[in-house]
Amino acid sequence: MVVTIIGVGLIGGSLALSLKAHGVAGSVIGVDQSAENLRKALELNLIDEGTTDLAAAVRRSSLVVVAVPMDAMLTVLPQVLDVVDQQVVIDVGSTKEKLLTAVADHPHRDRFVAVHPMAGTEYSGPEAAVPHLFEDKTLVICDAEHSHPAAVALVEKVFQQLQMRLVYLDAASHDVHTAYVSHISHITSFALALTVLEKEKEEQRIFELASGGFESTVRLAKSSSAMWVPIFRQNRLNVLDVLDEHLRQLQHMRDILQQEDYQAFTNLIEQANVIRKILK
Amino acid sequence: MVVTIIGVGLIGGSLALSLKAHGVAGSVIGVDQSAENLRKALELNLIDEGTTDLAAAVRRSSLVVVAVPMDAMLTVLPQVLDVVDQQVVIDVGSTKEKLLTAVADHPHRDRFVAVHPMAGTEYSGPEAAVPHLFEDKTLVICDAEHSHPAAVALVEKVFQQLQMRLVYLDAASHDVHTAYVSHISHITSFALALTVLEKEKEEQRIFELASGGFESTVRLAKSSSAMWVPIFRQNRLNVLDVLDEHLRQLQHMRDILQQEDYQAFTNLIEQANVIRKILK
Repeated sequence: MVVTIIGVGLIGGSLALSLKAHGVAGSVIGVDQSAENLRKALELNLIDEGTTDLAAAVRRSSLVVVAVPMDAMLTVLPQVLDVVDQQVVIDVGSTKEKLLTAVADHPHRDRFVAVHPMAGTEYSGPEAAVPHLFEDKTLVICDAEHSHPAAVALVEKVFQQLQMRLVYLDAASHDVHTAYVSHISHITSFALALTVLEKEKEEQRIFELASGGFESTVRLAKSSSAMWVPIFRQNRLNVLDVLDEHLRQLQHMRDILQQEDYQAFTNLIEQANVIRKILK
Repeated sequence: MVVTIIGVGLIGGSLALSLKAHGVAGSVIGVDQSAENLRKALELNLIDEGTTDLAAAVRRSSLVVVAVPMDAMLTVLPQVLDVVDQQVVIDVGSTKEKLLTAVADHPHRDRFVAVHPMAGTEYSGPEAAVPHLFEDKTLVICDAEHSHPAAVALVEKVFQQLQMRLVYLDAASHDVHTAYVSHISHITSFALALTVLEKEKEEQRIFELASGGFESTVRLAKSSSAMWVPIFRQNRLNVLDVLDEHLRQLQHMRDILQQEDYQAFTNLIEQANVIRKILK
């Protein structure tokens, strides 16, 4: 089938590669407001053709993927739904409640299936697109009951072909859980980078001494503000809630270290070690 | 040469593998207070023989590596120095000031070279030992002027054979810099695991939704309290100092999000992105 991907960055570009590699997409039309991104996406063979004419691309497609930052998503998704007829439309966004509210009353709402592939990297743009990004990862499908069953069935089939695990959540639960297991990690990583850049004035020392552990915890601090500020904005209350809990936990560790209560510190680390059971 | 490694865990065991693989050690004697660890280290071919007789092993060796947790280090290192004659002794510990103070007046102080390989994983014990852990990593040599030049030269030669980059620091600077680029990462990771375990009562959801980003930031929370509590204890003031800065940075991000000042939030993320320049 013909697939249109709007936004040929890390996620849109990686999805284009996967859909073609798994034989889901016969051809991929890329739509992007940046002519430069379209040029790169063509050069990298992410897409078969590029255009800025969104409506024409949508009309020629069976499946439309909207892979733009969450602030743009609020205006682009309704524009796409204005054009669709029998096409199936998905977003791949990291927050859901505001988006689903924005299209709740759209006459073509049932052509839209809200999904969130739990996969990504700290890089962005067409050059960041990689194959195999989605294999063995989770796809969250949100509020599936508001989509036409045939549209949901097509989306399920497509992402099963991409070897993803499917999980079903309502939009509100999705936003709570992603604040816990994704958004807070980005906040802590940004703050850790700022901390170390503030304290460690000798950049050469960071480079020399940083080991895998530091790189691992600070890796997400390379992520782009264009993608993440709209996510934090749309999931603000959930992010604030988990951030407040994180501040309490850190302050508690600080107080215990200040007081030299090493038995309590040991107990906290052993509680944290429970994460071993959950993550391989 | 014959090398004795005291403490056949992640670091001691990995070093044993590396020293043999690079032809530095003809044979490795393992010393451990745990008979079980010695049994495993023999079974895994980390060491050629195991003993609990520290003094006898040291006397038969040219190089002695003390790779025990930092609290035990304060008592084991002087015991080793009591026995040495012409042997060279190194620690591989993560903190230096208290250790170097503890042996400052030892009559064999100049046989000891304080080193810290900036490498590790979140696992521990002999089963966690891996080859190639040290290649292309940094080795910090501390207060080299207090060691015999021939002892320093031997250590430099050994770790260059292991393909490590050598960096020289005084003990106080070492402890400051490692608080910034290593110890704080462990604190934030432990606190992040505690946060998510507290907020996310459905462990199955963490498992289903956690992506690479979350795993990356929380990976170090699997690290053992036996190794890390003594490090935080011995580097307490530096860790508190950087932790206070981290709490300020996080609180600032929280306040800006609370106030919905998204331009300021964008600026902070772009400042954090500077870490891209420093880490590949």
